[in-house]
Amino acid sequence: MGSQNNKPTLVSLARELGVSRQTISNVINAPHLVKAETLERVRAAIERSGYRPSALGRALRTNRSMNLALRVHTSEDDINGNVMDRFLHSLADAARAASYRITIFTAVDSDAEIAELDGLRAVNAVDGCILTDTTERDDRPRRLAELGCPFVAFGRPWGQLPGTHAWVDVDCATGTRDATLTLHRSGHTRIGFLGWGPGLGTGADRRGGWREAVDGLVPDPDDLSLQVEDGVAAGRAAAAELRRRGATAVVCASDSLALGALPEFARTDDPFVPVVGFDDTPVTRALGVSSVAQPVDEAARFCVATLVGLLRGEVDPAEHQQLLTPRLKLRERVA
Amino acid sequence: MGSQNNKPTLVSLARELGVSRQTISNVINAPHLVKAETLERVRAAIERSGYRPSALGRALRTNRSMNLALRVHTSEDDINGNVMDRFLHSLADAARAASYRITIFTAVDSDAEIAELDGLRAVNAVDGCILTDTTERDDRPRRLAELGCPFVAFGRPWGQLPGTHAWVDVDCATGTRDATLTLHRSGHTRIGFLGWGPGLGTGADRRGGWREAVDGLVPDPDDLSLQVEDGVAAGRAAAAELRRRGATAVVCASDSLALGALPEFARTDDPFVPVVGFDDTPVTRALGVSSVAQPVDEAARFCVATLVGLLRGEVDPAEHQQLLTPRLKLRERVA
Repeated sequence: MGSQNNKPTLVSLARELGVSRQTISNVINAPHLVKAETLERVRAAIERSGYRPSALGRALRTNRSMNLALRVHTSEDDINGNVMDRFLHSLADAARAASYRITIFTAVDSDAEIAELDGLRAVNAVDGCILTDTTERDDRPRRLAELGCPFVAFGRPWGQLPGTHAWVDVDCATGTRDATLTLHRSGHTRIGFLGWGPGLGTGADRRGGWREAVDGLVPDPDDLSLQVEDGVAAGRAAAAELRRRGATAVVCASDSLALGALPEFARTDDPFVPVVGFDDTPVTRALGVSSVAQPVDEAARFCVATLVGLLRGEVDPAEHQQLLTPRLKLRERVA
Repeated sequence: MGSQNNKPTLVSLARELGVSRQTISNVINAPHLVKAETLERVRAAIERSGYRPSALGRALRTNRSMNLALRVHTSEDDINGNVMDRFLHSLADAARAASYRITIFTAVDSDAEIAELDGLRAVNAVDGCILTDTTERDDRPRRLAELGCPFVAFGRPWGQLPGTHAWVDVDCATGTRDATLTLHRSGHTRIGFLGWGPGLGTGADRRGGWREAVDGLVPDPDDLSLQVEDGVAAGRAAAAELRRRGATAVVCASDSLALGALPEFARTDDPFVPVVGFDDTPVTRALGVSSVAQPVDEAARFCVATLVGLLRGEVDPAEHQQLLTPRLKLRERVA
């Protein structure tokens, strides 16, 4: 603990030299304002002392903390929560490459999230933020804009496309469409869908890709689509119902649902289980279940690059809106 | 972006009022030093402007950033990585309750981790840090002490117990012992162990609890212990070998190994599969496999409380060393 307090600071250095803090600041940042004799004396003292002008001091002058904020929350369903955890790790990597840091915080709801961001900004603890889990009637973009808080969203503005702010999202419909067409090519026509809904958002988007691909394959495609709560147990029950309706394969909106559907649809000798999950989480990888993978790394790099551009005033947010393409990971069953 | 730059700062306020920044700082922090007339005028201006003294300004005076640093890394094995992600979320919660924030960073190895922490501290971007993944010959505690960086470790100082620094860890041996005794009570005597090693550390600790519990149950307990690389595939191969050696149940050092062992040991009608994993990750919960759960929330609260105490100089690190007890989660198999 001792050496923490012995580290030279602007204050201790100013005291030692009998000059003002402003003088020392000028020596570092505006040497032309300082008399030659003082300049030399202070520079020598700075070198001797090992003093390094602090990021806080720089931040005070520039109004930059070099911190970007992200709300984290423990997902109710840890299987699906894995994607956001991977996003967080990728953000930390991308931020580091741009000399920024990620400061994480928790909040009970959107109101608390905005209040926390406002507070963090008011005390200059963060420069901007990354929003996640965008919803149909999401007022966070408007409120952040009103607060003057630069931000980028991982998640499109559902129902308000394209919006005026910067965002990146994954074109999940492409992923479920690819998954459905792949199952069709391997001989299935009665391909079901397990998802959640209704309303706009990721659930409807993922269902949309399946719906497009099955159109014309069977006379009654919508009979093979079930909307349930997310989770393994709900997936299990719904998969049994889809089997009763004659489905021989199923595309799922999440890996939790896919895990639930697995026992019902894994009863063939085919090395490819005709179940496709979403998000390529460890559980599907471990069990040899196919899944649609989101390009989380790419999304994180987009968020950091765009936010840093916004903070520098170099970027028009409305020109930084992008849909990334997911990738189907086909797997043979394990054991 | 506009309003970010219009936010009143110490600098803009000083310019507007024609007083020095020090005067404004004194009005806020040391009003007895300011003339009554100036005090009144500056206070009124502060109120009018909406200026809020910044955390950066406070930090500059107090040398406190109110940020605690944590290195994160993407685990090679995402199943087991889930525990550290849960720890991170719990840290964010605990930090918030103490008015601190968690700043995360990535690093390729321990040297880079220490260099990054030194750099963050040198610019006052963090006050202290939380170490994780402690190892037998871990020089990070010594190096952080030399740098004067306050820290607490989640993980005991293997091979150097109890050490002189603050740490919290989970008594994993208790967990595997409980798991083994529970399998014994349900009728098993030939209970195997799948773990990694050798050397000190979590692997040996987890094996130790099993070894203690099986002593005397069979004449050759060590024949039923295998040391393998962690992972589902390695677990599958090793489980087959344990079966050949006559094991009827198995305790595993990780959920990845347990998942691998599952097919070999799940061939009974018993609703309890005689496989116990470690860390209670989503995959064992979803599949109905028993697992030993680490009290991650409690560990995170310990870390934040201890580190905040160290930063306040109120805590003797050698008196803050604690082993927490894990809990066996017994589950019936799913489907």
